[in-house]
Amino acid sequence: MSSETAISTRQRILNCSQHLFNSRGERNITTNHIAAELSMSPGNLYYHFRNKNDIIGALYGDHQKQLLNIVSLPQQGEFGFEEKAKLLERLSASLWDFRFFYRDIEHILNTSQDISAAHKQTFNIVYKQTIALHQMFIAKGLLQASSTELRDLTYNVWIVLTNWISFLCTTSTITAADQSSQPYVQHAVYQILALEKPYMTALALKDYDALSQQYFVDLSQLYDIKSCE
Amino acid sequence: MSSETAISTRQRILNCSQHLFNSRGERNITTNHIAAELSMSPGNLYYHFRNKNDIIGALYGDHQKQLLNIVSLPQQGEFGFEEKAKLLERLSASLWDFRFFYRDIEHILNTSQDISAAHKQTFNIVYKQTIALHQMFIAKGLLQASSTELRDLTYNVWIVLTNWISFLCTTSTITAADQSSQPYVQHAVYQILALEKPYMTALALKDYDALSQQYFVDLSQLYDIKSCE
Repeated sequence: MSSETAISTRQRILNCSQHLFNSRGERNITTNHIAAELSMSPGNLYYHFRNKNDIIGALYGDHQKQLLNIVSLPQQGEFGFEEKAKLLERLSASLWDFRFFYRDIEHILNTSQDISAAHKQTFNIVYKQTIALHQMFIAKGLLQASSTELRDLTYNVWIVLTNWISFLCTTSTITAADQSSQPYVQHAVYQILALEKPYMTALALKDYDALSQQYFVDLSQLYDIKSCE
Repeated sequence: MSSETAISTRQRILNCSQHLFNSRGERNITTNHIAAELSMSPGNLYYHFRNKNDIIGALYGDHQKQLLNIVSLPQQGEFGFEEKAKLLERLSASLWDFRFFYRDIEHILNTSQDISAAHKQTFNIVYKQTIALHQMFIAKGLLQASSTELRDLTYNVWIVLTNWISFLCTTSTITAADQSSQPYVQHAVYQILALEKPYMTALALKDYDALSQQYFVDLSQLYDIKSCE
């Protein structure tokens, strides 16, 4: 087996696993399902990955790299609210591509110490980068918040962002298998902008509102809550 | 078997299941584990419940009754921020007692249409009651928010509240099995009060801050984020 084939088989296993986990739930998928889907012998799969956790760990590595790349602060160039919204949009897309992980996150982290340690590291870095980003907006006179408010806000931003898809899937008819959910998934960006809006200065607000609207989707059609609005 | 014994056996199965699900995860517990823990034959357990979903459904019924009771609007008497915080405290305690459900919520709702329909109903009622509660505070001059802001805020409140325990368990050393996590769990009340604080009027703010502090726990000791604060 040439090294090139080995790499490509490994990647095929990862892609197929991610697709099956996302559409049917990691809990319902075994390595045998993955091998069968790829018309591959279980032995060939085990040549590349010892077990399902190994596959999840490799996928998590990719996802972590993606997240940390997205939140890395811009070294140069303008970084305003439009760039901030694009950053949230990319985070939201990455969370959608990796939704199987968040769906079974407590089980996965209990099962693998390595993934658990990596995810704690992800949280710590994203937390610090979010604070740094907010501080940059404060320095520009676009945001006004005490360090206590920034801390409380940043926890809430992480929770809403990482649980938005689960919120949709558990309270509405949106399902994780449904690729057509994209606009509803992107509404996460609107919810985060709404969460941060009270801390925007008058200087920021006009542009901010127009930007938020680009991510707005009317959720009330998903719910029996029209009478409240 | 007398009717009294039947009721009490049923309740013993429910209590034991809830305990095992919470401490070890619903995913890891079968009806055989539950029967063994109760020194009961599987046949006796099946006399009371057809399968594990039946047990989860009965437990969810209790949880739903509890949640809807907590958010039912007061018919009389004073209802200020102190009562509001007590309401959040009771919600937070109920979510902790039923944490196994939220941990595996997507799988459980995919497996049972009845529980899925019931949970959507829970969300719709809690949403409406939260809006009504906020409107009451607006009428009293304690809160100022447009109907759009109330809607966005209420989605975020639900997400932070129902995912607070999962947030702790996935980003810190807190575990779902650990009864000593109680103060960290209660910090959910602080996070919700922080989320709503920007909408409080000057009239409300002094009391509000003092009240929030009662629920504050320093989370930074759980994380490697001291340098940011």
